[in-house]
Amino acid sequence: MESRAAAAEEGIPVEASRSTRKRQGIIEAATATFLRSGYLGTSMDEIAALAGVSKQTVYKQFADKERLFTEIVLGTIDNVGEPFFGGIDTLGSSEDLETDLRRVAGQLITIVTDPQLLQLRRLVIGEAGRFPELGRSYYERGPGRSAERLASQFQVLAERGLLQLDDPQLTAQHFNWLVLSIPLNQAMFSVDLDFRPAELDRYADEAVRIFLAAYGGSR
Amino acid sequence: MESRAAAAEEGIPVEASRSTRKRQGIIEAATATFLRSGYLGTSMDEIAALAGVSKQTVYKQFADKERLFTEIVLGTIDNVGEPFFGGIDTLGSSEDLETDLRRVAGQLITIVTDPQLLQLRRLVIGEAGRFPELGRSYYERGPGRSAERLASQFQVLAERGLLQLDDPQLTAQHFNWLVLSIPLNQAMFSVDLDFRPAELDRYADEAVRIFLAAYGGSR
Repeated sequence: MESRAAAAEEGIPVEASRSTRKRQGIIEAATATFLRSGYLGTSMDEIAALAGVSKQTVYKQFADKERLFTEIVLGTIDNVGEPFFGGIDTLGSSEDLETDLRRVAGQLITIVTDPQLLQLRRLVIGEAGRFPELGRSYYERGPGRSAERLASQFQVLAERGLLQLDDPQLTAQHFNWLVLSIPLNQAMFSVDLDFRPAELDRYADEAVRIFLAAYGGSR
Repeated sequence: MESRAAAAEEGIPVEASRSTRKRQGIIEAATATFLRSGYLGTSMDEIAALAGVSKQTVYKQFADKERLFTEIVLGTIDNVGEPFFGGIDTLGSSEDLETDLRRVAGQLITIVTDPQLLQLRRLVIGEAGRFPELGRSYYERGPGRSAERLASQFQVLAERGLLQLDDPQLTAQHFNWLVLSIPLNQAMFSVDLDFRPAELDRYADEAVRIFLAAYGGSR
């Protein structure tokens, strides 16, 4: 009753609000089920039961299992990525490049080693043959977007004489992979790895040190 | 009859030889089927039919689907990896480090972007939740072993004053990921990427340039 009252107060029609809540419940149930059982191992029946709605409701909201899977994967990427992308965009105007690169590297490694995001990434990679469009979208909205944003900021830094580079895209990928190297690849193959924050910080800081040794303006 | 004769000539009992051929046929059929349909999408019936043997024969050779999958994955890793690992092991005595690093980088990127190996890697990652042991073994026998071998050669090069480093393991990972950055990650999400050899060469060479700028002994 309380949420109905709140919805009415915010001027949201009660029906729409209930539908939104159902949708949200389905998304949460589907995320949990896909992450645990994979795409082929998950049924719409299971999702409906976990969400406490009928199977028809699931199909009304999401045309089929593929659509639901896609929505979950891309929604998660957007949610996780947005704050991080904002942090990249201030790099170009940095007054203390090493500190700011360490901040971005630390955020990047923390986001990418999030257990739920790692498992989603494993699923998308495992299903890239069945769902090529989803694989491409994941890449574009996640790692691809991150690389684009980094590249454009590195270009600005090069114009300011703080970096020396010919190919900002490649420089962005080098930065990205100096940071992610060990944790991401190892985590792809091992579901039960547990990185300590101090270890992740060390990877991030060492990546920045090597990056600046190679690309720094003063070499 | 010819192969029977050949087997007899080599002193291999005819029965063992026939069994070896059957085993090889099953491995080839299973590899093709797993690569196309994934783990859950593959049945032992399908494999038996494609190999032209009975289902009992498949089960006699490989106790179950999981055992067969494991055998294929680890066998492929070993076959692909062995010649490459040999090439790493001469790095320490290099008289022209840039050239030799370019050779290793070029081999690494060529092996890792092999379409069949990429698809196997996707499958293992996608199934890491179901088969944690296989994921770990894949990592250890493939990327992990490569990193170990690189690290020990980089240590030798550091002792010769040709590289400056504190942590050979991390240095090895940095080398690995400077080389593989773009192609491997992008290929994980897109099954139909087709890298031109010239493009791969450029990635390999740029990786070596950046690696030596950061870790080279003369900085």
